[in-house]
Amino acid sequence: MASRSAWAHRWRGSRLTIRRKPESEPDLSFNFVSVVKIMVKRIAIIGAGASGLAALRAFEAAGRKGEEVPEIVCFEKQSDWGGLWNYSWRTGLDEYGEPVHGSMYRFLWSNGPKECLEFADYSFERHFGRPIPSYPPRAVLYDYITGRIRDSGLRDHIRFRSPVRAVQWNAGDGNFTVTVENLVERHVYSEIFDHVIVASGHFSVPNVPAFAGFDSFPGRILHAHDFRDANEFAGKTVMMIGSSYSAEDIGTQCYKYGAKRIIFSHRGKPMGFKWPDAFEERPLLVETKGNVAVFADGTSTQVDAIVLCTGYMHHFPFLPDELRLKTRNRLYPGGLYKGVCWIDNPALFYVGMQDQYYTFNMFDAQAWYIRDVIMGRIALPDDTAMCRDSRDWMAKEEAAETAYDEIDFQTAYVGDLIANTDYPDFNLAHVAETFKAWKHDKVDDIMNYRDQSYVSGLTGALAPPHHTPWMRAFDDSMEAFLANEPETKRA
Amino acid sequence: MASRSAWAHRWRGSRLTIRRKPESEPDLSFNFVSVVKIMVKRIAIIGAGASGLAALRAFEAAGRKGEEVPEIVCFEKQSDWGGLWNYSWRTGLDEYGEPVHGSMYRFLWSNGPKECLEFADYSFERHFGRPIPSYPPRAVLYDYITGRIRDSGLRDHIRFRSPVRAVQWNAGDGNFTVTVENLVERHVYSEIFDHVIVASGHFSVPNVPAFAGFDSFPGRILHAHDFRDANEFAGKTVMMIGSSYSAEDIGTQCYKYGAKRIIFSHRGKPMGFKWPDAFEERPLLVETKGNVAVFADGTSTQVDAIVLCTGYMHHFPFLPDELRLKTRNRLYPGGLYKGVCWIDNPALFYVGMQDQYYTFNMFDAQAWYIRDVIMGRIALPDDTAMCRDSRDWMAKEEAAETAYDEIDFQTAYVGDLIANTDYPDFNLAHVAETFKAWKHDKVDDIMNYRDQSYVSGLTGALAPPHHTPWMRAFDDSMEAFLANEPETKRA
Repeated sequence: MASRSAWAHRWRGSRLTIRRKPESEPDLSFNFVSVVKIMVKRIAIIGAGASGLAALRAFEAAGRKGEEVPEIVCFEKQSDWGGLWNYSWRTGLDEYGEPVHGSMYRFLWSNGPKECLEFADYSFERHFGRPIPSYPPRAVLYDYITGRIRDSGLRDHIRFRSPVRAVQWNAGDGNFTVTVENLVERHVYSEIFDHVIVASGHFSVPNVPAFAGFDSFPGRILHAHDFRDANEFAGKTVMMIGSSYSAEDIGTQCYKYGAKRIIFSHRGKPMGFKWPDAFEERPLLVETKGNVAVFADGTSTQVDAIVLCTGYMHHFPFLPDELRLKTRNRLYPGGLYKGVCWIDNPALFYVGMQDQYYTFNMFDAQAWYIRDVIMGRIALPDDTAMCRDSRDWMAKEEAAETAYDEIDFQTAYVGDLIANTDYPDFNLAHVAETFKAWKHDKVDDIMNYRDQSYVSGLTGALAPPHHTPWMRAFDDSMEAFLANEPETKRA
Repeated sequence: MASRSAWAHRWRGSRLTIRRKPESEPDLSFNFVSVVKIMVKRIAIIGAGASGLAALRAFEAAGRKGEEVPEIVCFEKQSDWGGLWNYSWRTGLDEYGEPVHGSMYRFLWSNGPKECLEFADYSFERHFGRPIPSYPPRAVLYDYITGRIRDSGLRDHIRFRSPVRAVQWNAGDGNFTVTVENLVERHVYSEIFDHVIVASGHFSVPNVPAFAGFDSFPGRILHAHDFRDANEFAGKTVMMIGSSYSAEDIGTQCYKYGAKRIIFSHRGKPMGFKWPDAFEERPLLVETKGNVAVFADGTSTQVDAIVLCTGYMHHFPFLPDELRLKTRNRLYPGGLYKGVCWIDNPALFYVGMQDQYYTFNMFDAQAWYIRDVIMGRIALPDDTAMCRDSRDWMAKEEAAETAYDEIDFQTAYVGDLIANTDYPDFNLAHVAETFKAWKHDKVDDIMNYRDQSYVSGLTGALAPPHHTPWMRAFDDSMEAFLANEPETKRA
């Protein structure tokens, strides 16, 4: 394996990958550079969150094995890496007038076992030096995701505060013009790339429906995207519209931090968990009259605040029609071969655009696959074959009836990707079983499921229990989580 | 004056302005149309708020006088016209994932006398059929602004839900490519225009500074842009950062609707008004420690919520560097001849980009001027002369020391524009005096200045007093405002 410095050297040349000239070679550097200049591809990655970093890591892994990698430029809108995991108190528009990317809130703890999202090439135990509990808070996951690449030199390939404004396909030249704004200098510029990897996420742009009466509701109405601090709702009756992860987690949190009553309003079915007495599930909101919420079953109740937990949109304002993924949130969006290659133009890729059980390790599997297509190790079949393959997966997704079916579906998808690359094999069957155990544990005790422990498929170690039951753990800092003593007072 | 229908007919032809053929004329329509097709200009107006509607109205006014007007397309991001005055409960991103334009909140009443913003060609008395009080609530102003053009046919020229994504100058052809997204169809397209008028506002994209401790402040932090309903803050201690109109008005409102304490934190000087006991002014915030705000003078106090009243940015992400106005909020931004013509490329115009005493009537004066430049009635001088003129105005602005000086400065600016067009002359000296009286009345009694009445420079009528003192008027609907009886209970 190449040393870090040699690898970094190869990456840091601007447009060129410069090989070190062995002492014994004659000086042919001019010609050598000219040849390489023609051959080296330029790759644009849009976004430096979990998906974009996976793409950077995939190329780095090839570099570490001594292979010649393309030139990579990663454009990141935020001022730091980590995507959604990069917490900000900001909501709405940021300091540059850009939409705030983050949907992250204070006191968020993983809502799934860390054993299900562990990178196959970098275990939690390796990062933290010892086994840690199964449900870490945000700061711990942020440290883990970014820790894998902290010393890699990959940061030099990321242009921060640089939202992509437009991507255009140049059919004649077979490449892309990517137009970017440097927010600090307020300068707009364009560069040419051979491939574009869209890794801008799909849990950032809220889906915000309207209800009659909202114009005169005397309190705060917000989307989950703008939820930041549960303390704001202490003593209040908070209504969540929605019945998926955001509703469940924000409702639980508000209760933990002192809300008086939690009301869930569902469009489809109630979540049906064993909620404490302060919780109730109601059918869909019809309208608000002053501060009274009226539901589809004719019942009504007074509420102080409304949180729209109504999901997110796949939103790519920088992409033209013909390159733009248009999909609802599903396990297998259409138009993508192997879930990543844009069939209409296979020079374009998407990472992480699926609805997710698997997360970080799935993004890795996708990134390794994309890398190998770009580097010519995987040959894509023709359009017809790609469309057929995609349709087959979509048909399987649609046949899934239960959450367990969905877990099995996504397990098979990730397994198919891994089988085609050198991404380290991990115990997928074990991860699938862990997902199912997690689902079961939630049904068993929704308020305390985070007190469970699971076995890592990588290390075989059972996670230790956390020192403080989740419902009494108010301090979500990494220091508190990693401390060896129970939390005794509320932070 | 041409009848509405004849005028509308002339406007409604898509690319062409079609004159009605008098009965006696021979049928030469084909040749006539061909000639007109070459001659007619296409104008893009970006934004259908107060400024954009002024631009539409200016061309309509010429049309009503029987003149051949260019083809106008107005691109509006929102689903209705009225810009900031089009209230929405939404904050952050809207139903299409676009930044919410509005900074408007419930219970906003004009903070200046309506006599200072009255359209010279359409008095309040004409719109409402009788004199009305001097400080109307938002809905009344919205009705007035949009009422002027409600029956004009101008709405047909506006493409709603159509944010402009990019404007590009084609130097060879001497025209612009304007790229727009149709949000409903999620379709991106481009069209060619001879002129672009940027009327997208500059009180929409918040300037949001950070302070130490915000990451862990246990309550809501928002910018004034996201403030919607004062009821949310009843019983709370609310801190406003800032000392301009937003801080003053939001603080006053929160108090009116039941906030316990109002704290203003200023960077420069305190506002110095005669505040009630529940108010205090403090120097700039240094940091928050938990829910305790620490100020530059070393004092500290507990606060429940923080409203950043820290102003707005001139923000034009759709414009390339060379067309983009970059300025702080000031009475005479640089780079604009007569405050509207982009000196570097006089095919481009901006409306309403000034800091404002004058508003609706100033936008009109600017729009009439722009129209006359486009229609060839006003010839622009050369670059050097435009730069010199602009510099002269900026020097005068910088010499202004008091608010009265600033009022006189902007009065002179508006007067200079009006002198060059057929915009109806209005009693500018009277308006300037009214601004000064308003300033004085605020110093006299900040909580009750809205109970004053002023004389319209157009009609000479003294506004009647409102039926209910502002501090006890909780219902801000148009119906309540126009009712002939006092408000007896809180809405």
